[in-house]
Amino acid sequence: MDLRKEIREIQDFPKKGISFKDITPLLQDGKTLKYLTKEFASQLKDLKVDVIVGPEARGFLVGTPVAYELGIGFVPVRKPGKLPAETIRYEYELEYGTDVLEIHQDAIKPGQRVAIVDDLLATGGTVLAATKLIEELGGEVVSLNFLIELGFLGGRDVLKGYKVESLVIYE
Amino acid sequence: MDLRKEIREIQDFPKKGISFKDITPLLQDGKTLKYLTKEFASQLKDLKVDVIVGPEARGFLVGTPVAYELGIGFVPVRKPGKLPAETIRYEYELEYGTDVLEIHQDAIKPGQRVAIVDDLLATGGTVLAATKLIEELGGEVVSLNFLIELGFLGGRDVLKGYKVESLVIYE
Repeated sequence: MDLRKEIREIQDFPKKGISFKDITPLLQDGKTLKYLTKEFASQLKDLKVDVIVGPEARGFLVGTPVAYELGIGFVPVRKPGKLPAETIRYEYELEYGTDVLEIHQDAIKPGQRVAIVDDLLATGGTVLAATKLIEELGGEVVSLNFLIELGFLGGRDVLKGYKVESLVIYE
Repeated sequence: MDLRKEIREIQDFPKKGISFKDITPLLQDGKTLKYLTKEFASQLKDLKVDVIVGPEARGFLVGTPVAYELGIGFVPVRKPGKLPAETIRYEYELEYGTDVLEIHQDAIKPGQRVAIVDDLLATGGTVLAATKLIEELGGEVVSLNFLIELGFLGGRDVLKGYKVESLVIYE
């Protein structure tokens, strides 16, 4: 199945000059949702993954069905103030300013093998922050799996040392 | 399986006097994620549902695995400015002020049978807004399915006329 032709490109969203890759057409079609979930699961099935982590909010959409298919749990990584119990936080640089991600302190047990599933690998900043949170809790990040990779932004270089797989790559 | 004992109650979150029901312990355990997803799927399997709608962001967590299990698509309902293509919006009253939800104009086709899956039925305002959006696009809301219902807040009365099911009810 050619996922790329189901991805809708929206010009100048969220700001001028950006061609946003809209994944909602893939999700709203049961056949493509099934296909992409099984592709992710197939990439991960031999890695003995204990838990899937997904960043808010599109990471929830692609990551939870993968966890379900693999029969394992899902842990959300969220913006500040959204997770109700005790959290740890990681602050990271954006093009302008900084951003913060949080994870529940008890979400990952030391030694657990974790895969991060997200919709998009762009510059890699968000997923790198998620790896820091997981590792601070003693988890081992065994794979980073993306629906879409914007190869021209060099996110893979930022994630050197990690296993990175993407279903659709824009060179 | 007694889901209730896996739900973590956080006192005074997000504000004083509220006992927040934290569902992340259910999601991070593969067995409970599987159980609750199959329960939702079982509630919906004879209703000829074409698509699941879930409100941002916890509705994404509980709704997408259900869509996957049923082999149908998932449509996100989001806060303003998050959905990139053409949207319709619905503004609704909160205790103080108003809130707005959006859905993509082409997310639901006229005549489609839609179930809304969300983590929590409280006062019912958010899910009622989601039904308005679906119906404006010509969809038929055949079921509203919640992980947790705060029965004492009377959300069911607000949703009169709809089929409402909840996995865990706090009276």
